[in-house]
Amino acid sequence: MKFTITRATFIKSLNDVSRAISTKTTIPILTNLKLDLTDTALILTGSDADISIESKIDATSETNDLQVQSTGSITLPARFFSEIVKRMPEKTMTVDVQDNFQTVITSGQSEFKINGLDANNYPRLPEIAAENPLTVPADVLRQLIAQTVIAVSTQETRPILTGVHIQIQNGQLIAVATDSHRLAQRVLELPAAAGADYDVIIPGKSLIELGRTLTDEIETVEIRFADNQVLFIAGNTLFYSRLLEGNYPDTSRLIPTSSTTTIEFDAPTLLSAIGRASLLSHESANNVVRLNLNADQQTATIYGNSPDVGNVEEALQFTNLTGDNLEISFNPDYMKDALQGVGQTTIELAFTAPLRPFTLVPSEDKTHFIQLITPVRTFS
Amino acid sequence: MKFTITRATFIKSLNDVSRAISTKTTIPILTNLKLDLTDTALILTGSDADISIESKIDATSETNDLQVQSTGSITLPARFFSEIVKRMPEKTMTVDVQDNFQTVITSGQSEFKINGLDANNYPRLPEIAAENPLTVPADVLRQLIAQTVIAVSTQETRPILTGVHIQIQNGQLIAVATDSHRLAQRVLELPAAAGADYDVIIPGKSLIELGRTLTDEIETVEIRFADNQVLFIAGNTLFYSRLLEGNYPDTSRLIPTSSTTTIEFDAPTLLSAIGRASLLSHESANNVVRLNLNADQQTATIYGNSPDVGNVEEALQFTNLTGDNLEISFNPDYMKDALQGVGQTTIELAFTAPLRPFTLVPSEDKTHFIQLITPVRTFS
Repeated sequence: MKFTITRATFIKSLNDVSRAISTKTTIPILTNLKLDLTDTALILTGSDADISIESKIDATSETNDLQVQSTGSITLPARFFSEIVKRMPEKTMTVDVQDNFQTVITSGQSEFKINGLDANNYPRLPEIAAENPLTVPADVLRQLIAQTVIAVSTQETRPILTGVHIQIQNGQLIAVATDSHRLAQRVLELPAAAGADYDVIIPGKSLIELGRTLTDEIETVEIRFADNQVLFIAGNTLFYSRLLEGNYPDTSRLIPTSSTTTIEFDAPTLLSAIGRASLLSHESANNVVRLNLNADQQTATIYGNSPDVGNVEEALQFTNLTGDNLEISFNPDYMKDALQGVGQTTIELAFTAPLRPFTLVPSEDKTHFIQLITPVRTFS
Repeated sequence: MKFTITRATFIKSLNDVSRAISTKTTIPILTNLKLDLTDTALILTGSDADISIESKIDATSETNDLQVQSTGSITLPARFFSEIVKRMPEKTMTVDVQDNFQTVITSGQSEFKINGLDANNYPRLPEIAAENPLTVPADVLRQLIAQTVIAVSTQETRPILTGVHIQIQNGQLIAVATDSHRLAQRVLELPAAAGADYDVIIPGKSLIELGRTLTDEIETVEIRFADNQVLFIAGNTLFYSRLLEGNYPDTSRLIPTSSTTTIEFDAPTLLSAIGRASLLSHESANNVVRLNLNADQQTATIYGNSPDVGNVEEALQFTNLTGDNLEISFNPDYMKDALQGVGQTTIELAFTAPLRPFTLVPSEDKTHFIQLITPVRTFS
């Protein structure tokens, strides 16, 4: 195997597949990057067994400037090879696999010889057929990921909760995540032509990495499901993730359908105030802020307290406070994550009782994105 | 004590003095920031006992927008107070010290109450008289610091080598640092009016922090020496550092005065090549690269090697290679630091023998900045 390529082209694909390569793997060859060269394309592959990413560089595209001298495959230590490629002196470089998988990388006067490993020992990726693929706009998928992964559990005690539950049914895609303290649910309306129904759980970590590969250049993403894998096709990049096995809890009954107190806030303004209140709650044993809503006097006040450091009190700006008076305590970090998920908009909070979960929805569209936060019992 | 101030003005001074405040101090009050308010100025002080920084905000300057309601002093927990000040909602804020050192900080609707400590318990800064002050351009001082601190020892086995030796004599300022593997010496010509002679050792860490406070706005720095302290005055900021006690080794005799082989390189080009060679040397037990200079054939070649990963060989671009042929091995990280210190220029390397220190000087001025690197014995 021997090829010459523009370094910038190669580095772009290398960065994409490197996301999947971990130095902490129990399978040594997965610390390597795989290169497969045919007459028509160079394919880079990286994998950590959970996620695998393939990036294809087309030999027929003139902008890629890929010259194939001889075809073949090799795996090379990913971290070193990346460092070498990025530091080479000239615009192009040549990679030449010689005897015993020794690989020579040259650029200008610089010549590296590094020890590769046989590509035949690299795990094979699953083949996922193109039955009933689903195509979604990349920016919508990126937003859906950002809005749900915040509520994924980071604890391995209930592994199923480390994933995002994706249901495709009745022309909708419903994505839900919960760590049992909070929940985020995002609904996408699918085009009428959408195919079969699916019910899968995708690891949150996979979706976070997928989100990072969805750059602005990518317009649409094709999603294909198999028994225990999902494949996302974005431009020349193939992103594979294993699925989590098991049954996701039924979350639909958790979402309250009525409320006794509602209030609207400008999300960025509330986010700033919560940030200030959390400065003190972060210093106390129970990381909790207190929100007092007085519909009679039309006031909303937030309180943070740390016995060692001091306390904070802030009268909040709001609109449309209606219903019963209420005092409720919650973890401000959950509220910060939730507010960051909605962005620059107005939100509605709806409460039923001081110890019942409350909801947070964008005022302009209350059905496609809903977040739930469970309050904390306090004795102050 | 009570004042109202534009937050942006306060934050600038706060950032300056915060450099001196460490959370890892054995003197609890030093985790606090001190505020002293008179009718004419607000003075902020931070200290970690080694370094103390004072920043003065003038009440008579209209741009500072400082309104003094009542004078006094307080110390406040630095990290919290900074976070609070930076997150406040309005352009201005009011700080009001009440009973028992409790301090109320308000901005818009946000009101924090935090627990302060009596400013009388804060250590006093030394008074350093203005005898024989020395004034140097800030950019020259910043460069001198950057060029010498790289060679300061980070090991406490010989504490004296953790400082930079500064000698002021015969109308020159000579700054030298060495960790016994390499040495950097920078000489400044002082204006004729310069005062008394000094011989002091300033901790490298202090100079690194000082360098960070010397922003582009600052034009000159006044330096005052006392028995065990040095004071740098830069605009409204006073930067105090303790001095190291003891005798610095005589380094003048270490610098070779003759050579048998010399060669010139473009510093950034050599830096790139050394960076590549070090990718492999970093993976071997002894972090060493090998340089072969052949004056007969007019070649210069660098080699890096790691038994596990592979090797690299690169023919270097150079000018003016004269003298004996030579093969020498050295730590590439020392060379990288040295080349970063000289910047975008041409440098001359001068060698005497494979195991004798070699020198690195800018080609355009070989007397005011000289660096020494001790080679490594290898058996390859």
